[in-house]
Amino acid sequence: MSYTTLRYEVSDEILVLTLDRPGHLNAFTVEMAEELVAVFARASEDPEVAAIVVTGAHGAFCAGMDLSVDGNVFGLDESMRPTLADMQRLDDPAIHRGVRDLGGRVALAIHDCAKPVIAAINGAAVGIGATMTLPMDVRLAGESARIGFVFGRLGIVPEACSTWFLPRIVGPSTALEWFYRADVMDAATAHAGGLLRDVVPDDELLPRALELARSFVDRRSRPSTRLIRQMVYRNSALPHPLEAHRIESLAIFYASIGDGKEGVAAFLDRRPAEFTASIDDVPELWPAS
Amino acid sequence: MSYTTLRYEVSDEILVLTLDRPGHLNAFTVEMAEELVAVFARASEDPEVAAIVVTGAHGAFCAGMDLSVDGNVFGLDESMRPTLADMQRLDDPAIHRGVRDLGGRVALAIHDCAKPVIAAINGAAVGIGATMTLPMDVRLAGESARIGFVFGRLGIVPEACSTWFLPRIVGPSTALEWFYRADVMDAATAHAGGLLRDVVPDDELLPRALELARSFVDRRSRPSTRLIRQMVYRNSALPHPLEAHRIESLAIFYASIGDGKEGVAAFLDRRPAEFTASIDDVPELWPAS
Amino acid sequence: MSYTTLRYEVSDEILVLTLDRPGHLNAFTVEMAEELVAVFARASEDPEVAAIVVTGAHGAFCAGMDLSVDGNVFGLDESMRPTLADMQRLDDPAIHRGVRDLGGRVALAIHDCAKPVIAAINGAAVGIGATMTLPMDVRLAGESARIGFVFGRLGIVPEACSTWFLPRIVGPSTALEWFYRADVMDAATAHAGGLLRDVVPDDELLPRALELARSFVDRRSRPSTRLIRQMVYRNSALPHPLEAHRIESLAIFYASIGDGKEGVAAFLDRRPAEFTASIDDVPELWPAS
Repeated sequence: MSYTTLRYEVSDEILVLTLDRPGHLNAFTVEMAEELVAVFARASEDPEVAAIVVTGAHGAFCAGMDLSVDGNVFGLDESMRPTLADMQRLDDPAIHRGVRDLGGRVALAIHDCAKPVIAAINGAAVGIGATMTLPMDVRLAGESARIGFVFGRLGIVPEACSTWFLPRIVGPSTALEWFYRADVMDAATAHAGGLLRDVVPDDELLPRALELARSFVDRRSRPSTRLIRQMVYRNSALPHPLEAHRIESLAIFYASIGDGKEGVAAFLDRRPAEFTASIDDVPELWPAS
Repeated sequence: MSYTTLRYEVSDEILVLTLDRPGHLNAFTVEMAEELVAVFARASEDPEVAAIVVTGAHGAFCAGMDLSVDGNVFGLDESMRPTLADMQRLDDPAIHRGVRDLGGRVALAIHDCAKPVIAAINGAAVGIGATMTLPMDVRLAGESARIGFVFGRLGIVPEACSTWFLPRIVGPSTALEWFYRADVMDAATAHAGGLLRDVVPDDELLPRALELARSFVDRRSRPSTRLIRQMVYRNSALPHPLEAHRIESLAIFYASIGDGKEGVAAFLDRRPAEFTASIDDVPELWPAS
Repeated sequence: MSYTTLRYEVSDEILVLTLDRPGHLNAFTVEMAEELVAVFARASEDPEVAAIVVTGAHGAFCAGMDLSVDGNVFGLDESMRPTLADMQRLDDPAIHRGVRDLGGRVALAIHDCAKPVIAAINGAAVGIGATMTLPMDVRLAGESARIGFVFGRLGIVPEACSTWFLPRIVGPSTALEWFYRADVMDAATAHAGGLLRDVVPDDELLPRALELARSFVDRRSRPSTRLIRQMVYRNSALPHPLEAHRIESLAIFYASIGDGKEGVAAFLDRRPAEFTASIDDVPELWPAS
């Protein structure tokens, strides 16, 4: 499988996914959106991949939507007049192609991914270049990073599920201020606001991201890691801890008769664990949506 | 329209709303509650207003419920015995007048407001004077600010939807501690806990609040700003990002054929955008509640 | 009532609950789980108890699940194959005994408790020893504390409703990183991540916890404190502040005709309040679950 807008490079179980549109600061297009949706589904299933680092080529992360294209720059069908009721039919081809926010489809693909995802933000991350990092689990930035939730300056609104993710990451007050101001922030400001785990010199960014990814997956059970990722995002949004308890009970039950057997045995033997379960050895934890 | 308990002053698109009950440290009364509900609805629709700064006169923000009135100081009908089922009929006149928390009605009016709201907290902000700032988007305080969630000392409970807002702003642990302790905090303590964006010298408070308000609205699309405010509060509380995606898709669709056209054109022309859409040019994003 | 795995000691309205399994660093067993569920229900009703401090004996808090027992170390019935549908029948004896996560049953008992709960974390708090502190309201730690969400290293998953609580306390990004890394952290790291209110010298830990507990309950109304605790956890997870308003309205209505009368009178008389209402003088605020 090859891509026009990105590179897929796996080394020692870590996938480095590099946004790569030379001469355009990796600006986002309909094609990049489709490739990102496909690539996160592929990485989720690829047995060679245990964790994912996303970064950009050419000294930028992603400069935002490519506004130089003809027609509706967001790829939408301007002849339609969708309603709230229509949005219950996301798979209807007319809605899917003509109305659904492309950034949101990418965000949902990242959210559905079975493996940890780390953003290594280098240079400009603006618009969808900023919001696509929100469904990633941890954000590291180089000192050159410039991050902007600039939708308000364009007369549009935040997308890519960012109105769900950003308030959860930085709180509602900072999220509102950043969306209202629509400024491009430096890395220190974004770090102070709680968006970034760390800011590092640019040439240390990728090594640090790889090191962090490594610490997430070495001697780990694939189904356990998958369940952790899904449960943190989904269970924390449930209205009562009792609902989380139902789901965790199933998850720990099947883990305890799967890789948990080896984990406990290795702990008691004081030896490293050798986990063998497949990433698909997981129970169904939520009703199909 | 004139008010007994507050002042409504618009200058250069910024409304300064000043709580003003001389000799009472702007203490909250049934009349002030009704005026606040009305004034946020008015400001929401007033085409002269793009953003709102709320502050207090006479060296205080709001000293809390005026406890010196006769009868039930919270304005409730003590002859009633409401049940959980009754609370589904909030518009029933007996429930509306006799049972509904007045602070909650004010909080919901602020929550429903179509424009950014900044609290400029000067001096005492106690009880409802503290909780009414929580549905405002950003809180700035002067060094003289004293903030107290003192309900526990009066044998009552937090109100004004504060059990919804405060844990989202400062986290559940700090929210519980502040409600349990029921102390009056200084500005530095409230800032350290995450309640305040900034603490500034008292004489810089209003200028800073106005400057921040200005940065939220200059060269911005009114419908875009309105949608940002509503989506951040409402979408972040939904159980799954897919639900936010449905709503954002509609919002960005209509923005892209509205003020977004001018925003993109201005960006490509490297000129300032001139947005013209009305604040009512927005799709219906949620079912009527 | 006596216990095998813990001590129940009340002094001046504060219950100190001490995990106590000598020679095992207070490791968690099925018996300890059952005792904890029972003891939080007892403390919730015990009129001598106004607040609860939880700590560990023998220089540790709780070293996690005791993995040295025979059979399924999590106490689960490995002959079963539970489904999502089965988890709707939590009270079915086969599900209750054979499938439900024991840590989750403890977490829900803490969550249901009518009184403030403070964790005083001394020494090792690992696995369930870490997650059982999350439904407690405030966490203090001694300098010797070592906290580890180590489930991933054992091939299992986080439990005890921690996928609901931890992201709410430290945010989704830190929660994911801690669960993925599965390291044992020192107290300073846990504090920097937002898990702990404070880190203090070991010999000051219990006195500080008791002092904090005292500040939560002295001259407080028991039903008011109970309602605060329940509303902060439950209302903040509701999808719209209007839902919190319904509940707060009922809560403040009944408080205003209960201990609130004395609270307001004492305030106006400038004398200390003497609250007399029983902890059971509270309205039903949520539908039975």
